[in-house]
Amino acid sequence: MAGSSFGTIFKLTTFGESHGLAIGGIIDGVPSNFLLDIPAIQKELDRRKPGQSSLVSPRKESDTVQFLSGIFEGKTLGTPIGFIILNENQKVADYDHLKDTFRPSHADFTYEKKYGIRDYRGGGRSSARETAVRVVAGALAKQILNSIGIKFSTFVDQVGDIRFHSDKFFALKEIESNLVRCPDKNVAEKMEKLIREVSKDGDTIGGAITCIIQSVPVGLGEPVFDKLEADLAKAMLSINAVKAFEIGSGMSAISMRGSQHNDLFNDDGSTQSNHSGGIQGGISNGMPIHFRVGFKPVATLMQNQETIDSKGNKINLEGKGRHDACVVPRAVPIVEAMAALVILDFYLRNKSVNL
Amino acid sequence: MAGSSFGTIFKLTTFGESHGLAIGGIIDGVPSNFLLDIPAIQKELDRRKPGQSSLVSPRKESDTVQFLSGIFEGKTLGTPIGFIILNENQKVADYDHLKDTFRPSHADFTYEKKYGIRDYRGGGRSSARETAVRVVAGALAKQILNSIGIKFSTFVDQVGDIRFHSDKFFALKEIESNLVRCPDKNVAEKMEKLIREVSKDGDTIGGAITCIIQSVPVGLGEPVFDKLEADLAKAMLSINAVKAFEIGSGMSAISMRGSQHNDLFNDDGSTQSNHSGGIQGGISNGMPIHFRVGFKPVATLMQNQETIDSKGNKINLEGKGRHDACVVPRAVPIVEAMAALVILDFYLRNKSVNL
Amino acid sequence: MAGSSFGTIFKLTTFGESHGLAIGGIIDGVPSNFLLDIPAIQKELDRRKPGQSSLVSPRKESDTVQFLSGIFEGKTLGTPIGFIILNENQKVADYDHLKDTFRPSHADFTYEKKYGIRDYRGGGRSSARETAVRVVAGALAKQILNSIGIKFSTFVDQVGDIRFHSDKFFALKEIESNLVRCPDKNVAEKMEKLIREVSKDGDTIGGAITCIIQSVPVGLGEPVFDKLEADLAKAMLSINAVKAFEIGSGMSAISMRGSQHNDLFNDDGSTQSNHSGGIQGGISNGMPIHFRVGFKPVATLMQNQETIDSKGNKINLEGKGRHDACVVPRAVPIVEAMAALVILDFYLRNKSVNL
Amino acid sequence: MAGSSFGTIFKLTTFGESHGLAIGGIIDGVPSNFLLDIPAIQKELDRRKPGQSSLVSPRKESDTVQFLSGIFEGKTLGTPIGFIILNENQKVADYDHLKDTFRPSHADFTYEKKYGIRDYRGGGRSSARETAVRVVAGALAKQILNSIGIKFSTFVDQVGDIRFHSDKFFALKEIESNLVRCPDKNVAEKMEKLIREVSKDGDTIGGAITCIIQSVPVGLGEPVFDKLEADLAKAMLSINAVKAFEIGSGMSAISMRGSQHNDLFNDDGSTQSNHSGGIQGGISNGMPIHFRVGFKPVATLMQNQETIDSKGNKINLEGKGRHDACVVPRAVPIVEAMAALVILDFYLRNKSVNL
Repeated sequence: MAGSSFGTIFKLTTFGESHGLAIGGIIDGVPSNFLLDIPAIQKELDRRKPGQSSLVSPRKESDTVQFLSGIFEGKTLGTPIGFIILNENQKVADYDHLKDTFRPSHADFTYEKKYGIRDYRGGGRSSARETAVRVVAGALAKQILNSIGIKFSTFVDQVGDIRFHSDKFFALKEIESNLVRCPDKNVAEKMEKLIREVSKDGDTIGGAITCIIQSVPVGLGEPVFDKLEADLAKAMLSINAVKAFEIGSGMSAISMRGSQHNDLFNDDGSTQSNHSGGIQGGISNGMPIHFRVGFKPVATLMQNQETIDSKGNKINLEGKGRHDACVVPRAVPIVEAMAALVILDFYLRNKSVNL
Repeated sequence: MAGSSFGTIFKLTTFGESHGLAIGGIIDGVPSNFLLDIPAIQKELDRRKPGQSSLVSPRKESDTVQFLSGIFEGKTLGTPIGFIILNENQKVADYDHLKDTFRPSHADFTYEKKYGIRDYRGGGRSSARETAVRVVAGALAKQILNSIGIKFSTFVDQVGDIRFHSDKFFALKEIESNLVRCPDKNVAEKMEKLIREVSKDGDTIGGAITCIIQSVPVGLGEPVFDKLEADLAKAMLSINAVKAFEIGSGMSAISMRGSQHNDLFNDDGSTQSNHSGGIQGGISNGMPIHFRVGFKPVATLMQNQETIDSKGNKINLEGKGRHDACVVPRAVPIVEAMAALVILDFYLRNKSVNL
Repeated sequence: MAGSSFGTIFKLTTFGESHGLAIGGIIDGVPSNFLLDIPAIQKELDRRKPGQSSLVSPRKESDTVQFLSGIFEGKTLGTPIGFIILNENQKVADYDHLKDTFRPSHADFTYEKKYGIRDYRGGGRSSARETAVRVVAGALAKQILNSIGIKFSTFVDQVGDIRFHSDKFFALKEIESNLVRCPDKNVAEKMEKLIREVSKDGDTIGGAITCIIQSVPVGLGEPVFDKLEADLAKAMLSINAVKAFEIGSGMSAISMRGSQHNDLFNDDGSTQSNHSGGIQGGISNGMPIHFRVGFKPVATLMQNQETIDSKGNKINLEGKGRHDACVVPRAVPIVEAMAALVILDFYLRNKSVNL
Repeated sequence: MAGSSFGTIFKLTTFGESHGLAIGGIIDGVPSNFLLDIPAIQKELDRRKPGQSSLVSPRKESDTVQFLSGIFEGKTLGTPIGFIILNENQKVADYDHLKDTFRPSHADFTYEKKYGIRDYRGGGRSSARETAVRVVAGALAKQILNSIGIKFSTFVDQVGDIRFHSDKFFALKEIESNLVRCPDKNVAEKMEKLIREVSKDGDTIGGAITCIIQSVPVGLGEPVFDKLEADLAKAMLSINAVKAFEIGSGMSAISMRGSQHNDLFNDDGSTQSNHSGGIQGGISNGMPIHFRVGFKPVATLMQNQETIDSKGNKINLEGKGRHDACVVPRAVPIVEAMAALVILDFYLRNKSVNL
């Protein structure tokens, strides 16, 4: 039983290999009669694409989304929205050397063993290219959520050891003010410098992203298994290179005492602190949803590495190609997209909680 | 759309409030003709129950599981297994003071707002009591996994600031050698001491659990959304009080370079390091699955706290009742149960990967 | 992947073998804060049970439903409702002769081959006894639907060749006015006479049931696959012994011309005829939902039959036990229950059609 | 919660309005490493398309399927297969008169009321054009089923009152020997004559299709809700214009006695008769699966009809456009496609019945 669908009521199903004809998806369960801003979706997609700055992969892909159905005179029909993004920049020759190679910490080995076959060109289905489809669906979801007042602030909070601590809800403009997508100018400069250094070494570096969601209504989340944080965690860990997830206090809760950690109520039901990260008992409590996602360093290096081929022979893997030295700047819209898919799905799920 | 089911092929659906007549569940998709060891399931349930040691809640509940269907002459029929655990120790009077009280960092407020009604006795559906049902289903799953060689090692690795670092696969005997369920005797003593101190203060403390799963076959996991680590993360974040999840290198990956983090292959397809935590591209690679779960301190204190009632009036909440000062010792079988549910479900999902 | 769940938002999962300890189920997705009439549910269950009249199986089973969760002070909590019905009348010795026997047109052969094991006592999981669980859930659904004005009229319209033609919405009192549950007294008498004759021969006879659902709001149904009639058809064909399903004009549509069959509109959007059976394009149109279900004769005869054992040896199967000569009188509440599950599920599904 | 997906393991999700840019789908859960015959899929699609003969709608659409992913060097990758069919023949002007018209027995009224918006061009999402996508997925499923010996025979058995009775498994060549797709030459001629007469009157006529599936292994079907006949019934009733479904003896079972209807066993577990239609207790028994589907006459007439507009005003609807007078000849590949989707899904579901 394959796993190409995400969500229950607002449900995204995706397809596409990195170097096939196209990637794309179908969104089912889109609320009807909603006026879409299509250019805004494309703009969100542009935030993810390679070649957008000197900091990221110089690959040039126009990544233009084409909507094929479910929209009529600009409005959603309530029927499934099908869409595709053509794969334009298919330098297939680049990948011949990978036909029989299992790259370290990539999915070559596991795909080959699981499926008995794989599209080795650019990672095939395991390429992060598939996340472009998530960004399209997430951008659409975000428009719907924005219309009911829910807002997102997603930014890079760490690259390597350089950490930016903040609970503030930053505006998009602040986040987009620099290439790293960290809203603090000084910290961003340090991060950028580190990424360039690492890149010069032909190496890569990990990072982390914070996402804050404001004005989420009380009541989203479906205990006992589909707790809001549980589905956010799944959403995040389904993104390539993610190794960790924290909601609210996260790992720091381990060292805390209950008397410190408990979020005391104000008279209006809001809380004085927000260690809960906006979720109590698996259900949103009206405080900002606050979570953090840790990414490993990109596995593709511009250094030579020893590895094996499909017959188990030791071979040398040359570092070449066009890749990011740090994934987090481009992962910001992906994290936000997946968060939007979760929040909208739970918003719609909550509509049947009573008659 | 409610969320009381977990899994796709091996699917657990649960019911039950803390102080209703019973809690229980239905497991659908159980492989047929498998000889069960029922007493071993009960034994696993005993590891979770309150009152088992001087370190945990002194509540006495016998927590006896009764299987009602799906088993014939000791063997699974392939039909759904229904089971119940009666709620015996219902001191309902204990909870009258909570009827109109929203306890800090509990689910009282969110349940009331979401459903417009709640069973306030002992937390009702939001009580960790529901995890007993998960332990039953997980123990059953573990028996099936054990029969194909898959083994679990789950232990406490942190209480407050006391951390035990190890990647070793510890035997159950070692883990059960002390009340904390940390396999290192010296560290366990320190943890136990800390828990008793915190308890004396009427306070609580957080903790963390490591789970290592050995001999998982290559190929489990269903990209791009149902990656193995994604469903493990969801499983863990669906457990009460969990705030964080790490797979393999986890948060430490943020600070690492790719040249350090990449897991180089041995000739046989195994890897020299295991920063991936046994999963690459969302699919198990045959190395031990390795993840870590962070728990917040229990929200119920034996101290007075200021809080609000359902009308928003400030009230004083007295600390009373019977509760754990640290949840992680009793959470060990819960973490392991949820992990077993995930692994068995993906094992069965993988059976249809080809004809 | 097993199939013990029905519905998406209002979802019933069931368990239980005929002669195990109990049968039961979990209903997830029940709208919260709804005041239930529990005795009315039991009353509905009584309509299905054996031993209720001289016309049906003389087995005596009290079939008392016990609700274990999800209800607090008479109201639904919005959490899963677990319930059980104990299997009281377990004359196990009655079934020893079936241990190795494959009864003709029963599920003995297919269960044995599929699962490699079966509970041969009374048909085990394949017994129509499991439909008692459906009746409980359906009765609960019906109460919720009744509260929003939706009403059901379900009655026997055929036994053998005796056919009762009517599109009228009969009140429960009329349907319950005789043992056959056909609202026409004269036809019912003929049907009853036929059933007694067939029974005297040790034989059985088929029958059919009409179900009419009034005041269903416009808009229920989810094209293109989950059309309302598609899920009604599935619901009906999932009932033991059902061989055919018709919506609206049904099989008679085959011989009709479009100019006869088309339902012309009145000014208010209602239609002059109702060949559509209340559904157009898979979506309810506000006219009465009208469908019909055909049942085969019960496979258990009070005659001797030649059959085979599990080794393929020809054996003689004696006709004995306690069984109905015609299933349709007792199937009326089952058909209605399944219809109610479908309608309520689609009612709740429709709540997310727009923001 | 929308309904654009069909199946559980082998799962088809579709999109597309009749006059949007394209229709298409994603098939998830395709067994990996299977060599596809793409031209054979196109050929199957050609059997469904309009303009293929003088008997059906003269619309010319090339209906060419384009596969976008999931296939590499002719073989399935085990990843989702995305595909599209462009909508070429969009004479949009043809539909301006339908903008505010609710056509009788069409989905115009119900779509407008449910979604608050509709694409009125050619029926939009409710057009039978979406079934082209089903045929693609079904043809692919059929190839996989053929490779394990499962074969389909699907043919027209009734048009109006002209009925062809047969249980024979006809070869494709026999079925394709005439325009009606009824394997008996003489009956086919009468059917064709009737369709032409009806067409001359500007009218339409109903019909029926029989489907026989050979060499289905014992064990497919997942009681108690996902019985094989239940999902076949749902599959068929999800097709536009279908009003009735019969498995095995179908409606004729109503009049039969158990002693006639029971299928007595042969020594090898096969049965002497096949009233069960190849399914007992919801599980295939190895005998041919045999079902029948009744279609209503097409709602679009070449006659004037009185109807209403969206404001409830009576208007005259002129009969014009390009439409079939009888849907069953072109529905044959659709019925077969849906049957193939069901059988393959249950084949894959059955793989996890035991370890």
